[in-house]
Amino acid sequence: MKNVAVFGAGRIGRIHATNLANLPGVQLKFICDPVGDSASQLASQLGASVSTIEAVLDDSSIDVVAITSPTSTHSDLITRAAAAGKHIFCEKPVDLSVPRAIACGEAVQAAGVACMIGFQRRFDPTFNEARTRMDAGQIGNPEMLVITSRDPGAPPAEYIKASGGIFRDMLIHDLDVFRWILCADGDEAEWLSATGSVLTDPAIAALGDVDSTAVTIRTKKGRLCQINTSRRAAYGYDQRFEVLGSLGLLQCGNHTPSEVVQWDASGVRADKPEAFFLQRYAAAYKAEIAHFFECLQSGGSFRTTVADGVKAQILADAAAESCLSGQPVRF
Amino acid sequence: MKNVAVFGAGRIGRIHATNLANLPGVQLKFICDPVGDSASQLASQLGASVSTIEAVLDDSSIDVVAITSPTSTHSDLITRAAAAGKHIFCEKPVDLSVPRAIACGEAVQAAGVACMIGFQRRFDPTFNEARTRMDAGQIGNPEMLVITSRDPGAPPAEYIKASGGIFRDMLIHDLDVFRWILCADGDEAEWLSATGSVLTDPAIAALGDVDSTAVTIRTKKGRLCQINTSRRAAYGYDQRFEVLGSLGLLQCGNHTPSEVVQWDASGVRADKPEAFFLQRYAAAYKAEIAHFFECLQSGGSFRTTVADGVKAQILADAAAESCLSGQPVRF
Amino acid sequence: MKNVAVFGAGRIGRIHATNLANLPGVQLKFICDPVGDSASQLASQLGASVSTIEAVLDDSSIDVVAITSPTSTHSDLITRAAAAGKHIFCEKPVDLSVPRAIACGEAVQAAGVACMIGFQRRFDPTFNEARTRMDAGQIGNPEMLVITSRDPGAPPAEYIKASGGIFRDMLIHDLDVFRWILCADGDEAEWLSATGSVLTDPAIAALGDVDSTAVTIRTKKGRLCQINTSRRAAYGYDQRFEVLGSLGLLQCGNHTPSEVVQWDASGVRADKPEAFFLQRYAAAYKAEIAHFFECLQSGGSFRTTVADGVKAQILADAAAESCLSGQPVRF
Amino acid sequence: MKNVAVFGAGRIGRIHATNLANLPGVQLKFICDPVGDSASQLASQLGASVSTIEAVLDDSSIDVVAITSPTSTHSDLITRAAAAGKHIFCEKPVDLSVPRAIACGEAVQAAGVACMIGFQRRFDPTFNEARTRMDAGQIGNPEMLVITSRDPGAPPAEYIKASGGIFRDMLIHDLDVFRWILCADGDEAEWLSATGSVLTDPAIAALGDVDSTAVTIRTKKGRLCQINTSRRAAYGYDQRFEVLGSLGLLQCGNHTPSEVVQWDASGVRADKPEAFFLQRYAAAYKAEIAHFFECLQSGGSFRTTVADGVKAQILADAAAESCLSGQPVRF
Repeated sequence: MKNVAVFGAGRIGRIHATNLANLPGVQLKFICDPVGDSASQLASQLGASVSTIEAVLDDSSIDVVAITSPTSTHSDLITRAAAAGKHIFCEKPVDLSVPRAIACGEAVQAAGVACMIGFQRRFDPTFNEARTRMDAGQIGNPEMLVITSRDPGAPPAEYIKASGGIFRDMLIHDLDVFRWILCADGDEAEWLSATGSVLTDPAIAALGDVDSTAVTIRTKKGRLCQINTSRRAAYGYDQRFEVLGSLGLLQCGNHTPSEVVQWDASGVRADKPEAFFLQRYAAAYKAEIAHFFECLQSGGSFRTTVADGVKAQILADAAAESCLSGQPVRF
Repeated sequence: MKNVAVFGAGRIGRIHATNLANLPGVQLKFICDPVGDSASQLASQLGASVSTIEAVLDDSSIDVVAITSPTSTHSDLITRAAAAGKHIFCEKPVDLSVPRAIACGEAVQAAGVACMIGFQRRFDPTFNEARTRMDAGQIGNPEMLVITSRDPGAPPAEYIKASGGIFRDMLIHDLDVFRWILCADGDEAEWLSATGSVLTDPAIAALGDVDSTAVTIRTKKGRLCQINTSRRAAYGYDQRFEVLGSLGLLQCGNHTPSEVVQWDASGVRADKPEAFFLQRYAAAYKAEIAHFFECLQSGGSFRTTVADGVKAQILADAAAESCLSGQPVRF
Repeated sequence: MKNVAVFGAGRIGRIHATNLANLPGVQLKFICDPVGDSASQLASQLGASVSTIEAVLDDSSIDVVAITSPTSTHSDLITRAAAAGKHIFCEKPVDLSVPRAIACGEAVQAAGVACMIGFQRRFDPTFNEARTRMDAGQIGNPEMLVITSRDPGAPPAEYIKASGGIFRDMLIHDLDVFRWILCADGDEAEWLSATGSVLTDPAIAALGDVDSTAVTIRTKKGRLCQINTSRRAAYGYDQRFEVLGSLGLLQCGNHTPSEVVQWDASGVRADKPEAFFLQRYAAAYKAEIAHFFECLQSGGSFRTTVADGVKAQILADAAAESCLSGQPVRF
Repeated sequence: MKNVAVFGAGRIGRIHATNLANLPGVQLKFICDPVGDSASQLASQLGASVSTIEAVLDDSSIDVVAITSPTSTHSDLITRAAAAGKHIFCEKPVDLSVPRAIACGEAVQAAGVACMIGFQRRFDPTFNEARTRMDAGQIGNPEMLVITSRDPGAPPAEYIKASGGIFRDMLIHDLDVFRWILCADGDEAEWLSATGSVLTDPAIAALGDVDSTAVTIRTKKGRLCQINTSRRAAYGYDQRFEVLGSLGLLQCGNHTPSEVVQWDASGVRADKPEAFFLQRYAAAYKAEIAHFFECLQSGGSFRTTVADGVKAQILADAAAESCLSGQPVRF
């Protein structure tokens, strides 16, 4: 039985806490959040207690902490939890600063604890099925990846200010998918070019950010990746990718609320994609946290390590820089 | 808090027990099954205890029994549970004998308890979305229903013998869907014609059953329904229907394990449907049992009553008779 | 070079005349139509001359006549053309009277001329591809056929009066598809049950006809076929069938004007099917008439003979009778 | 009646000659080709005569020349045909040299003749439907375009040597689609970045070319376009694009030989795309040449002018340069 504390009772914290509370062999003990009401409400729902970070880190009965607090707190909490000998599940990103993210990895290694970073897309049933088929050789050597990643609408200005910008906040996921899908054999990015525009909301320009981006990456082995993103798709949350290999193509489509198709005078109409990430990645979040505890149990390797988090962050920084300068970045 | 006992720890019992154990406001107390190992294994997984039917019915702290035992036990258990003042969730069918099924309804009414029959398709996200859109008038007046219902393979001979035959075992679901979709305004079947063949396995003929059927129903309002079934589809479990209305068509497709489409030399290939009913109707089973407890809580009407179970059984009997005689049945 | 005369310059006559005029080795010489304007307009468009049936039948330079005049004239024209030693392409049906249709077959045989009946669906690229794959064994033994056949709207009352009713006018095509797909190995219908309703327009009831039908056929080998039709689909012309075999399913979808899919706030919307038979079967009409002349050239067998026309007519009569009586017909 | 001569009886010449010979109001008079056999065979098929370029240009009865000869001959033939007062249809590209292409435009203008360049994708029923809906405002302001363009296999080395490389030979079409779809309001490219690799055949590297490319363009209005191409898709010829606008997305899919979907143990399989450009763009070639003659007749504007040809060539040169240098190009 693993005893667990969750740091952060916001939107993503509630998801992870609920999912892990339902796992066999896992006991959710504590919820910690500076907003006491959030913590106590979630704790009471899940049969846990409210506590503080300090108390949890001092409590030798706690095996695991799940860090689901704001990004700016991640590196501090990882470092402290590692020092306290706790195994760690931490939501992406490790940290907006690459050096601090690297330091987190070092702290984890020094402490000899396990640490997994939450990139939930690697656990999406559709995306994961594609990777499984690639591993089975079904499309031969992967050559080209096209990622379409669009949000249903831009977040509030406050969010954007703290986010690190679209590349560090939104594309970090796509950049991790690029590495997961196209670099499974140890390949890495060699050349990256990014551009972007403000097309949906001038307020985003005022914040020094863009809302639409186009990124291209060439790997050391010559593989090509194109990522197109927008903060605003009128039809909702669009999460697709296609990977071309020497023997074929794997195309990952959106998930939909139902399989109803309506035929009428306006056409033959399927559902829009699942509304946003909580819906689209509901199964992924469950599979992700289950994988974390299975690996803890079996000693197996995490699918997403701190090193993966660091590498995605380096790519995000490069993309942001390239978008600003108009020049490619070489690695 | 509703205290619940589950009668039957077989395949379907495990599903309902697991789902209801996760519901807020529901406490799974007892599992009863003549096969003690099944009962104790399930009980220990879900934090419940093993008991007997007699003890449960005598236990005034139990509010609800869920009957998930073999079909032949349903009417007896419904009658006894009703007499003991328990609310009842019972898997379909009520009973293979229409008079006994009617008697169950009378017993329930006399006892003043609530009783819902489990026709899980009414809770499938896709099928239910279709009905919701019909209720919203999106296809106008419903006129024609085409149901395709195919199993991935015939069950063992032992199962078929006890099943009451394909019409009472398999088509009962489709006949309930017919009533749910085409008779929402109180319409009912007026004329039914069925035929069938043994096309997949001669052993089925030896049991006096068929494995492929074609049923047509005309309602009092002149609506038309066609149901085609087979015990064996080489591509798996096929569960679709289409309803044509004066303003359009609603087409309900299969669910798939993933949204991966693979393009290669052999074509452009999507997933096969979910393998069988446990997968396809996983969400439906959850929604069904949640609906049962919500109605208990709110005093709302069940989506599927004993009367619905009786009416589906009458249609199944008529179809079996028509298939045998080659003549239509009029109601 | 085959010299050809076309009898009938109406809608379907114009299609066949235009298509055959573009074939290599075919010379369209004459157009005959009691409405002189139709004939002269079509003739001038296609570089042909206007003539009369009598003159054409007397003209020994004419090898082929294409009969595209109203149904009521078919049997007379077939008989006369056969007697004059002309090869014959005749639009479906042979004749609304089965005995007269049989007599046509005898006249053709006696005269030793070739005669093909136009059931264009057998030449549709999609339907024909399905049959080709069946012949190649890709779905094993065919077991069940579901045909969906819906018109975009009921024809005018005048048309319905002369049509012989929905079974002889509209379902004749579907009944021919049944034989073509499910009876390729010499199987034939053994039992047929039909029902119908008036759901779209009460005027159709006043004409003694129905607008919605449900037909079931069981063959001598136990194969099952269900046909559902409606005179009015709000979304247009719907022409699909699915054939289940022991190894899989072949599903034939509609054709669409374009492959554009529009994603917006209302959903993910593909095109409606092609508007009506002239659009949907444009390629089929071309392939059909080309097949006719290729067979004439090569001495090969026509895909649709007078005997096929007679057999479809017998099924249509049986369906009409069954719908009226409410009783099945056995063959 | 327009009298026409066709220069070039190769693969593309045969298509255009056949299509224009079937148009009303168009008389195909002469076929010219240095390979006399090609010319005479095509001429005899279509009821035309063989002639020489010199004779045609001297023949005042000829109104139109269609230039379908090798790329290297285009600019010379355009210039001479213009000087001879002939209207001109010329296959893409105008010329691999931008200055020579510009000179062609000047020659045409000076002569006062009409000249259309054949970019057939603008006439594809699917692509054109997308543009039509954009013009109707159905997706609001266009913001982002993703083009997927893949050949079924690399052409022979000889072809590649003369082609000008993948950007000038293959992407020229995609770059024209970019301008047609994203720059309909007069917008133009501002920044372009291209990269590429040799992933399919090392022989292509030996020729100094690449076989896989990723191009990104940002327009003056900030719109973004990504083009991904490969010379070799294992599943055939892949021609798709998606355009995101402020109100929705238009997704243009491939065309398929049939609408058969096969369900079996391996999955649910639709057809591969049409095999190559002759099949995929068969309807486009017909519509293109019909458009040319309709505009000649009506005095309307061509959908693709010499100026369009020049601008696509400028983009192709920029992409080739960017791919070589690894640096973006600004316009």
